Amino acid sequence: MPKLEEYLEAQHAQFEEDLCELLRIPSVSADSQHTGDVRRAADWMVRQFSDLGLSVELVETDGHPIVCAQSPAVEGAPVALVYGHYDVQPPDPLDEWISPPFEPTRRDGNLYARGASDDKGQMLTHVKSVEAWLKANGGLPLQIKFVIEGEEEVGSGNLLKLLEADRGRLACDVVVVSDTSQFGPGQPAITYGLRGIAYYELHLHGPKQDLHSGTFGGAVTNPLNALANMLASLIDDDGRIQVPGFYDNVVPLTDSERQQFAALPFDESRFRTQLGVQALSGEKSYSTLERRWARPTFDINGVWGGYQGEGAKTVLPSRAHAKFSFRLVPNQDPKQLDDALREMLHAACPPGITMELVSHHGAPGFLVPLESPYVGAATRAIERGFGYAPVFIREGGSIPIVTHFANSLDADVLLLGWGLNNDNTHSPNEKFSLVDFHRGIRASSYLWRELSRIAIA
Amino acid sequence: MPKLEEYLEAQHAQFEEDLCELLRIPSVSADSQHTGDVRRAADWMVRQFSDLGLSVELVETDGHPIVCAQSPAVEGAPVALVYGHYDVQPPDPLDEWISPPFEPTRRDGNLYARGASDDKGQMLTHVKSVEAWLKANGGLPLQIKFVIEGEEEVGSGNLLKLLEADRGRLACDVVVVSDTSQFGPGQPAITYGLRGIAYYELHLHGPKQDLHSGTFGGAVTNPLNALANMLASLIDDDGRIQVPGFYDNVVPLTDSERQQFAALPFDESRFRTQLGVQALSGEKSYSTLERRWARPTFDINGVWGGYQGEGAKTVLPSRAHAKFSFRLVPNQDPKQLDDALREMLHAACPPGITMELVSHHGAPGFLVPLESPYVGAATRAIERGFGYAPVFIREGGSIPIVTHFANSLDADVLLLGWGLNNDNTHSPNEKFSLVDFHRGIRASSYLWRELSRIAIA
Repeated sequence: MPKLEEYLEAQHAQFEEDLCELLRIPSVSADSQHTGDVRRAADWMVRQFSDLGLSVELVETDGHPIVCAQSPAVEGAPVALVYGHYDVQPPDPLDEWISPPFEPTRRDGNLYARGASDDKGQMLTHVKSVEAWLKANGGLPLQIKFVIEGEEEVGSGNLLKLLEADRGRLACDVVVVSDTSQFGPGQPAITYGLRGIAYYELHLHGPKQDLHSGTFGGAVTNPLNALANMLASLIDDDGRIQVPGFYDNVVPLTDSERQQFAALPFDESRFRTQLGVQALSGEKSYSTLERRWARPTFDINGVWGGYQGEGAKTVLPSRAHAKFSFRLVPNQDPKQLDDALREMLHAACPPGITMELVSHHGAPGFLVPLESPYVGAATRAIERGFGYAPVFIREGGSIPIVTHFANSLDADVLLLGWGLNNDNTHSPNEKFSLVDFHRGIRASSYLWRELSRIAIA
Repeated sequence: MPKLEEYLEAQHAQFEEDLCELLRIPSVSADSQHTGDVRRAADWMVRQFSDLGLSVELVETDGHPIVCAQSPAVEGAPVALVYGHYDVQPPDPLDEWISPPFEPTRRDGNLYARGASDDKGQMLTHVKSVEAWLKANGGLPLQIKFVIEGEEEVGSGNLLKLLEADRGRLACDVVVVSDTSQFGPGQPAITYGLRGIAYYELHLHGPKQDLHSGTFGGAVTNPLNALANMLASLIDDDGRIQVPGFYDNVVPLTDSERQQFAALPFDESRFRTQLGVQALSGEKSYSTLERRWARPTFDINGVWGGYQGEGAKTVLPSRAHAKFSFRLVPNQDPKQLDDALREMLHAACPPGITMELVSHHGAPGFLVPLESPYVGAATRAIERGFGYAPVFIREGGSIPIVTHFANSLDADVLLLGWGLNNDNTHSPNEKFSLVDFHRGIRASSYLWRELSRIAIA
């Protein structure tokens, strides 16, 4: 790889210049005023790929286009699919940005701009590593496909349709995604598990209108009383979820995972201070990291009903509402949960109340086998790129598209996070470390070599 | 009484016009934006009394003013104190009103407006009966004092202070209050028992800002989960309240009361239909009327927290809020409940949550002796005014000030209800029957005669 290393060194400034050019395009997918900007970002990606000589296609959708590109097939080597997104979160509140969100600005070794970390900067590391192979070595040691969408921040609806309609186009052995974080500075991470989600809305209807709680209280079922009782029944004081069968298919944490989590430099007291809480709580017999990454949860996300204004109004309300969600871990089945939850809530719904349970979206959890040869390859590549061995972590949030890739492409997924937890990815002053940008390009370059050495059946 | 009857007949339209004028003033005591309107209603009352030649005073307080008026003393006759209130409940939800809450509108023999029944319309019957005596008969057969406050819907705090500071001003033999309901149309009632109330607001504080429920869920105590659990713990599935000692001093229903309640023509199926519910529920082993009138309750009046907008937001909220209240019966002590409740909720508040419990207002329950001569006088007056004998009932609502009157003035209290249970007093489309408005004025006119005949020791 000496010529490649030389190329990376020589192109240092140019790589940053290219990233800045992409960051100047305000490709805010959620805001229809930016539809033209989103397309400009897609066109910019197309030019990157065609300049490299890859075959490239701008796939039109009902929304923002998807950029697909690929290098030639390589006999005997696995096919890698790089997923990323060129759209960004809205930048507001604008007045909290120190430098404008779409004028990339260098400060303290970071590049500040909306999308710097999520996901333009991280995604571009894989484009630049491919450039380095092609320019320095004249070719790639394996076939690489890129699928770079413009709707990640608004639910990936059209990419899901493409995945269903044309799975062959995305066929691969391994999916590479850089849209997560390192565990900390100098602690690059391979995220090998994500939680899934099942999100619900519960509406309880009691008397046809609000009643006087003095005249009617005690004899008419109060929807808010029913709501409190039904929600409270879903979880016990030990943090154990009471939906029948909820834990039946949960893959337990292995002893080695638990030891590995316990060995991570996680400062619980600092964590509490950051959140402004005096104590933490959760499922009995599990540590904080285990609770956040690898155990299922029940969280009420919102409630409303009755009188919420100033002072005391003695009302027995007509309706009560809640939004709540479960985080799921492998191998919990959202459909099975849905059935059991409906049955449980219907049984718990008291006389005089009718209930409506709306299911918002669901995705199962996701776990890569740590023994996978692809994980081994990524581990070695990261050691070369960063100079540190990666840690193996899980993440409590959900990236629904990742689960869909894993399930429908039957491929392992490598979540290689070059960002940091404090990159402000959905907040003002988003940033990305420039050192980590270059480390990511180097790690990605070595990843193609390591992956190409895996024998394909 | 012939001249008086004539006067009532002649003033029919004017009485209604006066009521509409008062109802057009949005005197919402709970909403500080309406402070000026509340005062306008007080001024309107002052003008009514001064126009009658009564001695009148607008008593300033820390909150809304109290209107006091009185006629001259009458040797040998008892002194009657009429209590009422000129403030009203908030009108929301506004979009459920058929005609605007502060534009009194006649429909089907009723007058629709916030405060029509509670309490402007009912209270005004006693003002108009005094007017009739003064205009038709040239004087009153007994001394009548009026105390009309502007804070009944927010706890009567300043009237309580006045009662403590200047009991002599309100000294009387009997208190007359029309702020309750008939048992049904054509079934005027003397209400001989009221429930008390203890109203609370609970605020739970968790992390210092809203968190991502994926990244933090399961490890950080969710204030909404805590809220559901704490509220649900206050009552069991048999409708029994779980605050320690809650039932210790409850005066049980007597067998004769239970028989009398059971004999009332109460159609439970019609009641359900009116409310739009398929079933009723409440404390085990009690009938619906017993549950509404003579047993204590726990009702959640409002809850809010987290995401309440469209779609799914995966938030672990920073805060959770509830308003809830207990209805109390004789001889439960609000102070004892307060102590036990605080202790119970503090014990139930999970790690990572700080709680704030705000007590809004409290009053014990109340019972009048049915053998009182004042009850006999009111019974005869109602027969004259309505053409029907009254039934003797209890009421689930609270008029905290009534309990205080009874206790501190050592007077009997006559609760003479001219309203109806379906007057929507704390709901949209509040109304008052115009026939009953005039019957009330007539009954009140006869009440002054009947009361004046009671010999005073």
